[in-house]
Amino acid sequence: MTDEVSQLVERLNDAHHDEQRVVFEDAVDQLEGTELALLLESLPVAERLERWEQVPDEERINVLVTMRSESRQAIFDSIDEEKLHALLNNVHAEDLVQLADTLPESVVDEALQNMAEMQREHYQQSVQYETDQIGRYVDHGLYILPRTARVRDALRGLKKSSFECADCLYLIKRNGDFAGTVLIQTLFSAPPEQSLQALSIDEPMTVPAEMSRSTASDKVEHSGLMALPVVDANNKLSGRITLRQALEITRENYESQLMATAGLNEDEDLFAPVLRSSKRRATWLGINLLTAFFASWAIGLFEATLQQVVALAVLMPIVASMGGIAGSQTLTLIIRGLALGQIAKGNIPPLLIKEVSVGALNGVLWAIVIGVIASFWFASINIGLVIAAAIVLNIIAAAFSGVVIPIILDRLTIDPALSGSVILTTVTDVVGFVAFLGLGTLFLL
Amino acid sequence: MTDEVSQLVERLNDAHHDEQRVVFEDAVDQLEGTELALLLESLPVAERLERWEQVPDEERINVLVTMRSESRQAIFDSIDEEKLHALLNNVHAEDLVQLADTLPESVVDEALQNMAEMQREHYQQSVQYETDQIGRYVDHGLYILPRTARVRDALRGLKKSSFECADCLYLIKRNGDFAGTVLIQTLFSAPPEQSLQALSIDEPMTVPAEMSRSTASDKVEHSGLMALPVVDANNKLSGRITLRQALEITRENYESQLMATAGLNEDEDLFAPVLRSSKRRATWLGINLLTAFFASWAIGLFEATLQQVVALAVLMPIVASMGGIAGSQTLTLIIRGLALGQIAKGNIPPLLIKEVSVGALNGVLWAIVIGVIASFWFASINIGLVIAAAIVLNIIAAAFSGVVIPIILDRLTIDPALSGSVILTTVTDVVGFVAFLGLGTLFLL
Repeated sequence: MTDEVSQLVERLNDAHHDEQRVVFEDAVDQLEGTELALLLESLPVAERLERWEQVPDEERINVLVTMRSESRQAIFDSIDEEKLHALLNNVHAEDLVQLADTLPESVVDEALQNMAEMQREHYQQSVQYETDQIGRYVDHGLYILPRTARVRDALRGLKKSSFECADCLYLIKRNGDFAGTVLIQTLFSAPPEQSLQALSIDEPMTVPAEMSRSTASDKVEHSGLMALPVVDANNKLSGRITLRQALEITRENYESQLMATAGLNEDEDLFAPVLRSSKRRATWLGINLLTAFFASWAIGLFEATLQQVVALAVLMPIVASMGGIAGSQTLTLIIRGLALGQIAKGNIPPLLIKEVSVGALNGVLWAIVIGVIASFWFASINIGLVIAAAIVLNIIAAAFSGVVIPIILDRLTIDPALSGSVILTTVTDVVGFVAFLGLGTLFLL
Repeated sequence: MTDEVSQLVERLNDAHHDEQRVVFEDAVDQLEGTELALLLESLPVAERLERWEQVPDEERINVLVTMRSESRQAIFDSIDEEKLHALLNNVHAEDLVQLADTLPESVVDEALQNMAEMQREHYQQSVQYETDQIGRYVDHGLYILPRTARVRDALRGLKKSSFECADCLYLIKRNGDFAGTVLIQTLFSAPPEQSLQALSIDEPMTVPAEMSRSTASDKVEHSGLMALPVVDANNKLSGRITLRQALEITRENYESQLMATAGLNEDEDLFAPVLRSSKRRATWLGINLLTAFFASWAIGLFEATLQQVVALAVLMPIVASMGGIAGSQTLTLIIRGLALGQIAKGNIPPLLIKEVSVGALNGVLWAIVIGVIASFWFASINIGLVIAAAIVLNIIAAAFSGVVIPIILDRLTIDPALSGSVILTTVTDVVGFVAFLGLGTLFLL
């Protein structure tokens, strides 16, 4: 896929304006909806809107649903309300749930009015749940039978069905309560008159609709099944979550985490408007500026020393940077552990001991290297000794902070991927500068 | 899952030594193999080995396969060769492929000798492929029929089968060549005497065994099917890749990318031995040290200036850090685009223009803020003007480098997630210090 999309971007770019039409028609034939969404996201907005016109009607909803929301917004903004109504005619409940937050309310209302009764109910059920709860995203394409049904009924239903690959069918009581899961496979070797209830698997797993998306998707991944039934607080079967959804959710989670390390959002459009993009990023720069002023303030405490030993100013960045890098290694390891749920109060002490030991070893190693180089560079053994001591102190502090900061942030339910490295850098900068310039003041003046 | 594992870590920690046995027995009952693997990874090595003894024999291979390789290595290292032989008795070809690189060669050979002929063939086929090719990881649990078979035969086979959920069966020619894909669903409504060949889907998608793991897993994700057939260079059907495998591969790719940003490996054990861990991280610190010396060298060019205007030393980190943060935002956006295959020669110019414009806007905004603060702090408008100009220059240079560096690295097939930020920081440090101290030399002396 990777190559296909970028090759198409290339071909579109190489083509003359009128040939682009032809190239994109090829792309439409060749790509699945998800890939088409990626391709459209890769184009500057003006071009994207022009190509969008060529996306066949029947593909449009699918493409929009898989697009990142900011890129999709750019398309919606260019469509007038009447065309939006036409686009959303016959939209499925699941799709409308995904699109609703990037649509004007009036358009959503109109789409709901045109929906079949059943679809509207599905929609209204889904939007009761928060955006991070799995109940909002349940898939309704599941094969449901009353628990009194027999194998024969189930096989007959399979002939007519058009469910996306299902390995299971679900049984419900007359009031809609979930009553069991039957593996389709077991139907084939069972006598036609056997009751489905008897074939139901022992202790069938269900997912509560209030469960978080990521926990629910982990459950599906580990279930060994292709989907799990989702039930509401009253044990009514409200839908299912499939392995394909689990894959999408996993991808989104990781992408958010990666983007968060730079203070960005998963939905950020590659070609977001300059003003909007600047505004969003300005916040992150502002937060960082505060921490940079901390570092400057720490240096400012030692102005007199710097004036006398200018070598300290030259070497300062080395102390800060070694601390920052060592700390970010520990931080990244711990953030992964937190994301995987591997870190609990119980294993923090041995983790701290391990990371601080690693820090101490590397601190001493690199302190010697840097100390020797600095001694020769400034022809002063004392400068070498001072920077060596500062490096050891800072790398150990960095390892300690790399464990402690993300764990505290996680307790406070602040995303450590987002703010962990800003805080860590502040610590390693301040500790590094104070240690280095402080020791310099004591021993070099 | 997240919570379950960390709660169990907690309960294990709270329990007295002899009670830990009981707690872990609970865990074994409660968790799937994958989760058990996560739990074991969360324990310090000594504890991990003790608990490993309690993992039931029939779960062991499954747990080992899903563990990260360094954590698994710690377990293998503790088992003597005879027990390893017993453990690997009856191992499946697919599992042995995953475990082989953490096992002594003699153990792998012995396991191969004890394998059924068919399994051994599967193994030997798989290991022909590189570790990043999908052919190495194909699953052999697929339902294959000769293309001359009829619907009746297929239905009869389903009764006896124990394939993990399959939505498709695959047809082969007499010589083993792939000949078609039949959706199981279409069997139910077809007459028993119909030939399967006639039911085969048009242009069935196949994945070449040489394809990279990540491209293959994207293909499955976008196929709408639960698995795709994998064929070798001669069009022989060699196995399939399932949606569940695609999910694992996607997870591993993202995890590698996250760990790479700190110069770490996806397989890094939370409780790796201190010495081994230090050694690995030392390299990354050493590389970073080289870049830090560059920055110091740049500062060293202006020693005379620093001696006269010590305020410059105090404010230096602000210039470098604003550049670094702005650059890393652009870098992260571009790295994601590259990973998704969204960036090609064609859209680089508009991307550069957009990112540099965003940089210029934010540069001017924060230059004013910082300039005003610095003017007051050091009671000198000139200092304010100098730092403001340096900030604008550095943030624009950072935006430019944030686009260009990862793209060049990608062309050179160097992972931009791994080395992008080290190189970027070098650029923003050097540009920042030279601009700031250079302007200072010109206008403040």
